[in-house]
Amino acid sequence: MWEAEIYDEMNGTGNLMDFLDEPFPDVSTYEDFHTIDWLREKSRDTDRHRKITTKSKESYWELIKSLLDAWSGWVVMLLIGMLTGTLAGVIDLAVDWMTDLKEGVCLSAFYYSHEQCCWTSNETTFDDRDKCPQWQKWAELMTGHSEGAGAYVLNYFLYVLWALLFSFLAVSLVRVFAPYACGSGIPEIKTILSGFIIRGYLGKWTLLIKTVTLVLAVSSGLSLGKEGPLVHVACCCGNLFCSLFSKYSKNEGKRREVLSAAAAAGVSVAFGAPIGGVLFSLEEVSYYFPLKTLWRSFFAALVAAFTLRAINPFGNSRLVLFYVEYHTPWYMAELVPFILLGVFGGLWGTLFIRGNIAWCRRRKTTLLGKYPVLEVIVITGITAVLAFPNPYTRRSTSELISELFNDCGALESSQLCDYVNNPNMSRPVDDIPDRPAGPGVYSALWQLALALIFKIVITIFTFGMKIPSGLFIPSMAVGAIAGRIVGIAVEQMAYHHHDWIIFKNWCRPGADCVTPGLYAMVGAAACLGGVTRMTVSLVVIMFELTGGLEYIVPLMAAAVTSKWVADAFGKEGIYESHIQLNGYPYLDVRDEFTHRTLATDVMRPRRSEPPLAVLTQDSTTVEDVETLIKDTDYNGFPVVVSRESERLIGFVQRRELTVAIKTARQKQDGVVSSSVVYFTEDNPQVAEACDPQPLKLRRILNLSPFTVTDHTPMETVVDIFRKLGLRQCLVTRSGRLLGIITKKDVLRHMAQMMNQDPESIMFN
Amino acid sequence: MWEAEIYDEMNGTGNLMDFLDEPFPDVSTYEDFHTIDWLREKSRDTDRHRKITTKSKESYWELIKSLLDAWSGWVVMLLIGMLTGTLAGVIDLAVDWMTDLKEGVCLSAFYYSHEQCCWTSNETTFDDRDKCPQWQKWAELMTGHSEGAGAYVLNYFLYVLWALLFSFLAVSLVRVFAPYACGSGIPEIKTILSGFIIRGYLGKWTLLIKTVTLVLAVSSGLSLGKEGPLVHVACCCGNLFCSLFSKYSKNEGKRREVLSAAAAAGVSVAFGAPIGGVLFSLEEVSYYFPLKTLWRSFFAALVAAFTLRAINPFGNSRLVLFYVEYHTPWYMAELVPFILLGVFGGLWGTLFIRGNIAWCRRRKTTLLGKYPVLEVIVITGITAVLAFPNPYTRRSTSELISELFNDCGALESSQLCDYVNNPNMSRPVDDIPDRPAGPGVYSALWQLALALIFKIVITIFTFGMKIPSGLFIPSMAVGAIAGRIVGIAVEQMAYHHHDWIIFKNWCRPGADCVTPGLYAMVGAAACLGGVTRMTVSLVVIMFELTGGLEYIVPLMAAAVTSKWVADAFGKEGIYESHIQLNGYPYLDVRDEFTHRTLATDVMRPRRSEPPLAVLTQDSTTVEDVETLIKDTDYNGFPVVVSRESERLIGFVQRRELTVAIKTARQKQDGVVSSSVVYFTEDNPQVAEACDPQPLKLRRILNLSPFTVTDHTPMETVVDIFRKLGLRQCLVTRSGRLLGIITKKDVLRHMAQMMNQDPESIMFN
Repeated sequence: MWEAEIYDEMNGTGNLMDFLDEPFPDVSTYEDFHTIDWLREKSRDTDRHRKITTKSKESYWELIKSLLDAWSGWVVMLLIGMLTGTLAGVIDLAVDWMTDLKEGVCLSAFYYSHEQCCWTSNETTFDDRDKCPQWQKWAELMTGHSEGAGAYVLNYFLYVLWALLFSFLAVSLVRVFAPYACGSGIPEIKTILSGFIIRGYLGKWTLLIKTVTLVLAVSSGLSLGKEGPLVHVACCCGNLFCSLFSKYSKNEGKRREVLSAAAAAGVSVAFGAPIGGVLFSLEEVSYYFPLKTLWRSFFAALVAAFTLRAINPFGNSRLVLFYVEYHTPWYMAELVPFILLGVFGGLWGTLFIRGNIAWCRRRKTTLLGKYPVLEVIVITGITAVLAFPNPYTRRSTSELISELFNDCGALESSQLCDYVNNPNMSRPVDDIPDRPAGPGVYSALWQLALALIFKIVITIFTFGMKIPSGLFIPSMAVGAIAGRIVGIAVEQMAYHHHDWIIFKNWCRPGADCVTPGLYAMVGAAACLGGVTRMTVSLVVIMFELTGGLEYIVPLMAAAVTSKWVADAFGKEGIYESHIQLNGYPYLDVRDEFTHRTLATDVMRPRRSEPPLAVLTQDSTTVEDVETLIKDTDYNGFPVVVSRESERLIGFVQRRELTVAIKTARQKQDGVVSSSVVYFTEDNPQVAEACDPQPLKLRRILNLSPFTVTDHTPMETVVDIFRKLGLRQCLVTRSGRLLGIITKKDVLRHMAQMMNQDPESIMFN
Repeated sequence: MWEAEIYDEMNGTGNLMDFLDEPFPDVSTYEDFHTIDWLREKSRDTDRHRKITTKSKESYWELIKSLLDAWSGWVVMLLIGMLTGTLAGVIDLAVDWMTDLKEGVCLSAFYYSHEQCCWTSNETTFDDRDKCPQWQKWAELMTGHSEGAGAYVLNYFLYVLWALLFSFLAVSLVRVFAPYACGSGIPEIKTILSGFIIRGYLGKWTLLIKTVTLVLAVSSGLSLGKEGPLVHVACCCGNLFCSLFSKYSKNEGKRREVLSAAAAAGVSVAFGAPIGGVLFSLEEVSYYFPLKTLWRSFFAALVAAFTLRAINPFGNSRLVLFYVEYHTPWYMAELVPFILLGVFGGLWGTLFIRGNIAWCRRRKTTLLGKYPVLEVIVITGITAVLAFPNPYTRRSTSELISELFNDCGALESSQLCDYVNNPNMSRPVDDIPDRPAGPGVYSALWQLALALIFKIVITIFTFGMKIPSGLFIPSMAVGAIAGRIVGIAVEQMAYHHHDWIIFKNWCRPGADCVTPGLYAMVGAAACLGGVTRMTVSLVVIMFELTGGLEYIVPLMAAAVTSKWVADAFGKEGIYESHIQLNGYPYLDVRDEFTHRTLATDVMRPRRSEPPLAVLTQDSTTVEDVETLIKDTDYNGFPVVVSRESERLIGFVQRRELTVAIKTARQKQDGVVSSSVVYFTEDNPQVAEACDPQPLKLRRILNLSPFTVTDHTPMETVVDIFRKLGLRQCLVTRSGRLLGIITKKDVLRHMAQMMNQDPESIMFN
């Protein structure tokens, strides 16, 4: 069975903690690795709500309780926002400190990061402050020499050592305490939100371990980001606070509304983009997203963003992660390089998805998967050894992106801004004309090109290891590097060849025509779009990230191109690919089902199979039922009038049937194996006194099972499953029961129709 | 019948043009004032798509056609965006000119507005430029005197005259050429998008007349805005471009996807808020909004916004309508007045909705409705007479809002910024400390208070007249006035009472603590929220409108409060109220249906009614069918195996049945009145040679009608109708057909359950 496979796969060494998180499921909840029934959850919530409303008229106490119940949604959002914002702040601070720890330590207080350490330094210029005396590199501290080959080698060695230590700690913690804490978590969260149960995936242990190991993984310098895992952490927070209110903890449908909002809060703190977070949750993660949830998600996202701002981990009290301010507009002609960047982003997306999925499949199927710790250590070692010599890969990826996005001001001292200044020109600081590139820029270009190749290759192998890993930041880094290179190239071309026809119209000599930082931003958007296939949320996140509404058209042009190019090579984004790789039963709302098959082609039993296991309304004995339960593993059984007429009257859940019979056997006198089970409305007439006592079970019978006719086109059936969130649907013809279609039948059929390898979807 | 009523209601004097817009509907389309079947439209589109895909493999030409078909969606979006942006630009320019025409004329070029006229004037300060010699008021031009009582009276008189002329023209054009062009159009568009057909509502004539009359109505100085009508105009554009592509023109479902995107483009140009427009379309207007539409809407909204910017009607090449820049942050303590503004907004929303609906009901039911032209003239007269003396109501409402939002800089010369400056203080221009209010501010306060009362009363009577009228701008004006008054009050309190405990913590003497413009902005958001009950889209529009991401928390606090307060008095926003008032069959996605009724309580026939009109699969004659069609007006008939068993086999549409029988009678030999109509799969066996030729109609039989059991809770039925967009649903019990539930039955039942006056929903 595929449940067992996923189970083995994900739990790995197995751990007790996750099972302690949640009490043993009672009859009203679902089993692990099963699909929930959205309609049933919704109607249960309506019942609950109706009860509370009726009660609230009885006394003041009940009225207050009903008001508290009505407000609990907002309270949960507030709590999620606050905890997510706090955790994100703590993670940011810890990552800052530990990333710098790889290079050196602050003498005034060891828990200060490089920037904090030199914050109060007396040195005035940025360049000098960077070298404040309180901050010492390891070699300087240990040997007293800060320069020379020996110091370099010692620093190099310690850099690699710290990286290995951090990643070893991360992978060990994940392995021992919370195997679910690995990866980005977004594929699993998408699956959970679509109505799947993965018990413990959003548990307290996962929350704790994922937070800690995320810090370690990011600090180790691996090519991964914190954005995806932050969404997972936020969802864990959401799940945690759900348990405070029975409204959410006892209803899997309502719980998922909270989780959708939590995902928005996660993205909100990851990028400082509350609106983008809500749109991301809407577009990318959520399945069932009523408008009420939209508003609450926005609230949670805002609370989270402002909590983070109150903590102020970047020390600049800005909400945005990479604040940019460009001083020149963009020109129509620049759309050509922007669209080329879009093409690059699409190609990168395709390469990354194919490469990463191939590697992950190899990991699943070969010996490689047996040594996750070793894999992490090796990849960390390679990353650290290759990253240290190149200044653009040595620093943290977010710092790199930030520098690439930045426009070169007059006072900028970085290598990338080493342009040849015209000494005669005196102009306002903000509006510097295009200048010829100096030697620093040229050496930066080489280093960036090497960094690009390095990032492209290493990211493919990094994503999917058994440590928390997001791919937003590495993808953006790839795009930003490529974009900056293109930007500098265009800038220099425009400077040296003003008279070329392509530049003549918009770029006069001595004007500031090209902003290479903007190209980096556009490239980042294109690459992120190619990998994730986000659209609106991508543009909104980029614009919130950088604060530039003016540049929405370049961003959009790149995002559209990148999506089209990537879609041409394969419709699925990285998350959908991983969902498929892992065989989760996820019914994508975006896949168009356009085949001509009918319900009768998909329903079971097939012609060669034994007939459907059904119960009759008044002729099945307790023993028959028990045998049926023992012999089959279906989630429920249709009930018909009689085996001859096959007219459907209802559907009974396996769990409820089991419990009802067990209870009746224990408590109800006269119920024996030969007792007849009645599902009829009228009282059964016991013919003779010696007959055993009948067992009436109409109360557990679902009288409104969902039915379609055998001629219903599968596209309609797929639509019904998607929109109503069904678990199963019965198939009839002229009122006669013919068969049953479950969500897994639908998914299997869709996979077959798309000519995919049916083995890759582990349903058998 | 209610269709006829709406028809009479809306068409009024009747006009031919609208009917010329669209060809006579053939069998595949729907009749006017009927509901579409979303599932059927979707499956028709899939069929079409399948055909094209199959054909595209045959030849290159077909491949190109299939590519064109795939791209047509983007082409439509591009065209919509460009036309909407252009129209919005033209409207803005025309309104500017005509609004100023009420006061005077430009001598250098009569088609210049006041601002354009004085643009090139040599006067340097803003105050002087306002009085440039090229621009002359009417009195000055006619009598030569610009001052004095005579000139004032003459200007007054001409102001009123122009206003009356504009509004008379507007209402006459609407009455004669396009009755559908009146009102805001958003309630009708919501209804259309939910799947209702109102033929001609989005026609070419409506587009033309609405554009022209919108200019006239806004210029006349009535208390109305252009935002709602712009959405209508954009949807007309969308409908226009749909007719270019059979993909959209022949499929009502696909057409609605385009219209959703067009609505986003409309809001985008109305406010210069592309993201807000998309969210507005998603949250407020659209019914069926797949993710593909989200992306395309965003594209259309962006194209529209940039087309408008290229036209640049405001002459400042900004996208935002009311650009503000505040120099001080807000403080936690200020949340108290912000929340109070939220309460005010909620109360205003309730007052406005109740008052406006009561007045509109009176208009519908009394003699008032017979004289729409007179009504418009009278209201315009009252508005103009009362508005002229007060400088804050005389100018256009958007200018008023713009001034109220504005922060008082050091150079500001308006009355609202007449603070007492401390001559000793020399500070940077941007950061002016709180100052005591001068006499100008106090007189402005009085005028604003009068303007507030005037706007509140007149807006209630204006919205719903037979001219294009939006309520965004008047609602925002009410809120902005109230907010500015509160803002100035708080500012002066803070200035004069630094030592009060509520100010002590955050407002030191000589500091710039309070920004009254921010209060105006918050008040505007609160009032708009109270009226429309928008949430996320409101906050996003406000923040795009003003460009201030910093102030999202005050905006959100006010919006939340205002929604809660208004919801406490009635769940429905102004659009839903108007939908209900007009009795449109709109199934709101947001209404929670929480009653315990079952499908059996709602289905028809009721116990006292005659049995359901059904056809049998092999025993109904052509004559029987014709009688049934003549005697009933149902949209379709269920087909059962036999009247005894009542086992359902399918559903046949009335129109298809009519056409099929008519065609058969004409073309098929031997089909006479006594011919038996067969819906069976097998060939009917004609017993004797003398029997008439049977008529086989299985091909028009829908073999997958939607069914629920009689025990299905109505909340589930409502959910199914909403999510799948059904027209009707058959009710069965154990495979036997019991009855039918149509969308109108569902709506009537919901209205009854909510204890509303069932008469107000005109379904009988």
